[in-house]
Amino acid sequence: MVISKPKQSIAEVITVGTELLLGQIVDTNTQHLAQEMARLGINCFYHTTVGDNKERIIACIKAALKRADLIILSGGLGPTADDLTVECMAKALEVELDMHQPSLEHIKKFFSTRNIVMPETNAKQALIPRGAEPLQNDTGTAPGIYWDVQPELLSKLNIECNRIMVALPGVPFELKHLFKVQVTPRLMQDGEAGSATIYSIDLRHYGIGESALAERYADLLHLSNPTVAPYAGHGECRLRVTAKAASLEEAKALTKPVVDQIIERSGPLLYGFDDTNLETECARLLTQKGMTISLAESCTGGLMSKLLTDIAGSSKFISLNLVTYANEAKEKMVGVPSEILAQHGAVSEECAKSMARGVRLLTSSVIGYAITGIAGPDGGTADKPVGLVWLALDTENETITKELRLPSHLSRKEIRTRTAKEALNMLRLYLV
Amino acid sequence: MVISKPKQSIAEVITVGTELLLGQIVDTNTQHLAQEMARLGINCFYHTTVGDNKERIIACIKAALKRADLIILSGGLGPTADDLTVECMAKALEVELDMHQPSLEHIKKFFSTRNIVMPETNAKQALIPRGAEPLQNDTGTAPGIYWDVQPELLSKLNIECNRIMVALPGVPFELKHLFKVQVTPRLMQDGEAGSATIYSIDLRHYGIGESALAERYADLLHLSNPTVAPYAGHGECRLRVTAKAASLEEAKALTKPVVDQIIERSGPLLYGFDDTNLETECARLLTQKGMTISLAESCTGGLMSKLLTDIAGSSKFISLNLVTYANEAKEKMVGVPSEILAQHGAVSEECAKSMARGVRLLTSSVIGYAITGIAGPDGGTADKPVGLVWLALDTENETITKELRLPSHLSRKEIRTRTAKEALNMLRLYLV
Repeated sequence: MVISKPKQSIAEVITVGTELLLGQIVDTNTQHLAQEMARLGINCFYHTTVGDNKERIIACIKAALKRADLIILSGGLGPTADDLTVECMAKALEVELDMHQPSLEHIKKFFSTRNIVMPETNAKQALIPRGAEPLQNDTGTAPGIYWDVQPELLSKLNIECNRIMVALPGVPFELKHLFKVQVTPRLMQDGEAGSATIYSIDLRHYGIGESALAERYADLLHLSNPTVAPYAGHGECRLRVTAKAASLEEAKALTKPVVDQIIERSGPLLYGFDDTNLETECARLLTQKGMTISLAESCTGGLMSKLLTDIAGSSKFISLNLVTYANEAKEKMVGVPSEILAQHGAVSEECAKSMARGVRLLTSSVIGYAITGIAGPDGGTADKPVGLVWLALDTENETITKELRLPSHLSRKEIRTRTAKEALNMLRLYLV
Repeated sequence: MVISKPKQSIAEVITVGTELLLGQIVDTNTQHLAQEMARLGINCFYHTTVGDNKERIIACIKAALKRADLIILSGGLGPTADDLTVECMAKALEVELDMHQPSLEHIKKFFSTRNIVMPETNAKQALIPRGAEPLQNDTGTAPGIYWDVQPELLSKLNIECNRIMVALPGVPFELKHLFKVQVTPRLMQDGEAGSATIYSIDLRHYGIGESALAERYADLLHLSNPTVAPYAGHGECRLRVTAKAASLEEAKALTKPVVDQIIERSGPLLYGFDDTNLETECARLLTQKGMTISLAESCTGGLMSKLLTDIAGSSKFISLNLVTYANEAKEKMVGVPSEILAQHGAVSEECAKSMARGVRLLTSSVIGYAITGIAGPDGGTADKPVGLVWLALDTENETITKELRLPSHLSRKEIRTRTAKEALNMLRLYLV
């Protein structure tokens, strides 16, 4: 019996676990649940994390019941004494726990199919607050819980409407699976899923910083629906366009004129959308143009090769890549003349050119590509500091080179990563 | 003036940002701050995330002031209208904001050295609640804030002791830097840093699953100080031993007998501690033994080469690696006989052996190592499904091979990653 249900649901996510408070693991469940809420059009005003402590979990649940009408708890459903979530849900509302026989059978079966006798502590996982619904968990032992809490139970907290409380296991793939298969349909059916949908699209840029991007699009950053916001990370920038509307189609339609305008204004700085990255874009262009490439990498040690072969179907455009780490390998494998090495050194425009040419001829590829530089932390000199990198792209008709001077305080890892991204971007600009 | 200070500080972390509530970014700041608190012996009972909403940020701050004596806010220090943290800190305690001239000069200088005129909105970042201390930020524009809030300001909230409120920028590297350089020393000086220190050590295992590890160490999992807990992730398992004591030395001493026992019992399943990973361990062993290696990779496309050259000084043991992606490259570069390719195929023990031998002879390395397999999603057959991989390690005296049959439902990325880890582990076991 539902007495009153707010039209716009407000949710709160509570993650339970002392390991989270100690920073021993990063809380990806909250992000997943937040994304799913946004997709379902459910507003979330707070996320809370609390440790394995009865009193504080109960306090969190009570606070959430007062300010949200959908509460999703993650974690604390395990078999040990530290797993307190279900007990605290029951305590917060002063109801009993009942042993749910089908869940107990499921847990026993889970062990018996693995030829293990169920440890007695696991029986605890089949305890369900009276009035709540257990959610069968095909991926683990602990059932989830979906509880449409009626106002009778809430009156002592001075809450007049019903509330929905959901408990999910903390293991990320169990949580994701149960949320998708068991919780989402119930939220839709109970009308918790909102009347509005949020849609976001990322416009990925390379070669411009966050503040420069924000300045260029200052006129768009104050829009309200869609909103436009810049994000930076890993040497790249994204503009995220987000709209809210009654349906996904309407939300998408709201973003379209703004997205079109950004595409037009950004030109080649914009290289893709959402999950596209520089390597998928390079792979797409290489495949589309039927071009082959081979690489001779030095300081990146195979990173660019790894990135390009991350893409399924990369065997269409790559047959051989080399990591010519030592000077000897540069001479022997791709025929860099020893005079170039002696006169200009391995980190030089001349050496990069020669490596690119050499690897192209060795493999009969359309494009030969070379990277040589100083990734550090050692090996830098006043003349050639850590962070100095030469890129070369060689074809039958032309050779393009580029010098990078990356900040020498960057870590070896960052220098290698940024170098690979710069190299992919130079390849992309050549292919476009 | 400090009227009363609890001996054991209790902290609360509040992260501010609607993008967190929408799940658009994962909140790594909370984890970092949580780890730092644990290191400083400060207990943290709650983490809260709240959106860019004045009323709700103030409510969060007030709730935190009541239950914690150290409140650390992250995010919302930017120049835009959405950045509300400082304003809300002042509102919660009903004090004015003052323009802090040195911070304003710092922000202006930040722009002028980049040949940009400071946008007027950035001046807002120099506003500081009256009585609070600005923390100079060498890595960005927004100063942090350290505020030893006196009881006079708190009496209206019925709080009798003083409180410390800290605000840090949401950009992770700015937050980390300011926390380390500016906040930690102040917490130590103000006696907030606890009288107990928590020390954790990770014992990294490879080749055993989480449940098998938990079962093997069931006798240790119920200890209380130190505690022992298993963690799984990325195909590896860790046992974390955590102790709490008055000093770091005492905490370390508490873990020692348990750590020694695990080392003894795990044998070669245990490969390292804390931030050690399979590649650093392989690099250490190769360097220690003065051995050189060269790789011929197929399905991993350079990933193992990338991992081994992530290590500074890898030029000591690597001169050349090959990504022999196409059959032609396997024949031409490392001399795999065409009969092997015709009879057994590229994904076969024979081909892996031949690749390993070929690359060893080509480079005159001590170890030749080859990886060939089917990373998918296409290219699998009933006979040779996606996930089938052959590894071969060749030296002058012996050839070791290993067949992997990884679950074919894994993604291309997972198959490549697990293959590289298995390959590194096989190399490690050879070197040990």
